[in-house]
Amino acid sequence: MKQSTYKLIETYMNDCMTDSAHDKEHVYRVLYNALVIADTEENVDYDILITACLLHDIGRKEQFENPNLNHAEVGARKAYQFLMEHHFSQEMAEQVRECIRCHRFRGNTPPQSIEAQILFDADKIDVAGAIGIARTLVYKGQVEEPLYSVRPDGSVSDGTDDAKPSFFQEYKYKLESLYEYFYTRKGAQIARERQQAAVAFYDNIFQEVSAAYTDGVDILRRQMEK
Amino acid sequence: MKQSTYKLIETYMNDCMTDSAHDKEHVYRVLYNALVIADTEENVDYDILITACLLHDIGRKEQFENPNLNHAEVGARKAYQFLMEHHFSQEMAEQVRECIRCHRFRGNTPPQSIEAQILFDADKIDVAGAIGIARTLVYKGQVEEPLYSVRPDGSVSDGTDDAKPSFFQEYKYKLESLYEYFYTRKGAQIARERQQAAVAFYDNIFQEVSAAYTDGVDILRRQMEK
Repeated sequence: MKQSTYKLIETYMNDCMTDSAHDKEHVYRVLYNALVIADTEENVDYDILITACLLHDIGRKEQFENPNLNHAEVGARKAYQFLMEHHFSQEMAEQVRECIRCHRFRGNTPPQSIEAQILFDADKIDVAGAIGIARTLVYKGQVEEPLYSVRPDGSVSDGTDDAKPSFFQEYKYKLESLYEYFYTRKGAQIARERQQAAVAFYDNIFQEVSAAYTDGVDILRRQMEK
Repeated sequence: MKQSTYKLIETYMNDCMTDSAHDKEHVYRVLYNALVIADTEENVDYDILITACLLHDIGRKEQFENPNLNHAEVGARKAYQFLMEHHFSQEMAEQVRECIRCHRFRGNTPPQSIEAQILFDADKIDVAGAIGIARTLVYKGQVEEPLYSVRPDGSVSDGTDDAKPSFFQEYKYKLESLYEYFYTRKGAQIARERQQAAVAFYDNIFQEVSAAYTDGVDILRRQMEK
């Protein structure tokens, strides 16, 4: 890819994501991890891969403003239109559109091309390990959701089967079990290497918080009875 | 303390902190950890301690709206006024005011009474370990500050001496070195037990992120030159 082409696509990505510093950091991590994976695969079209990575989340703003929209669908359409308007080949525009359409974690359109599979894995790697924990916590701050729920008896729920959204709930529902299914061997390997970091963090924070509630609530009750 | 007195003070705390779920969770953790510390100390006045813990951050909103204000000073004044209006003794109102005035990490008014020292330590414990990491990340989401800064050469800064605010900068500036000074033995012990959780998380996320930028940026450069 020419430097000028990269800059053109990067500028469009930045125009679509003016509001969120964190989303932009994520885009570069996905791009870089995708390139690390691609380096271990054959027959990768780097123009398609780089373009799809840079543009994969340009539909985020639309989904944030209207949660009924699917950012993968919106982003795929926007990317296709942008590429056609800037005289990329129809085939490239279609391939990039397909990569973005299928990148969604828990989506029901599995990625078919090698570029789509690499984007999918690189995006998923950014939910794994310590960085996945960090992104989830940053998001909980943005939407003002709590870290955990407190049970009626005053103890802290570990997140399992919680109805109310929280960081612990998200960990149990999404983060804990994401390490099983990857399309590429390198993607699976990177994720596995990070798993212990996420497990350790969750175990540590759960222990710190629940110890305070258990021991502290007991002492408070004693003080109340006096 | 009577249950009804606790409820009265808790309700006032909730009225002052309507906006932030995370700030309220923090208040309960500080209260519970303070009680765990108090249980190992002698001559603690639990009425003063419980009241000071519940009300210690009621000046947060004022500081958030006007960063020139000091939430410890504002909170101390508000708590004193509330207690006097509700016919608590002048001595109790003064003691609670003093605890809140001196609780601030990096403040220049060291806590003198045992209750003030316990509040100070319990508040600081909530910046230690995995919970300290989580609270910092939630805050970075709330104020839209990035996780890290990228150096001009494309590598990720570890946060040391960064001018620009980020999670890594905050870790290096504040979180990494908070384990030295505590007033109570139990407070120091709880903080030390949590230190490894914070260190491990920072090491893991720094390694994950910097590996992507180092290896990915290299491959991108090779693709650009073609």
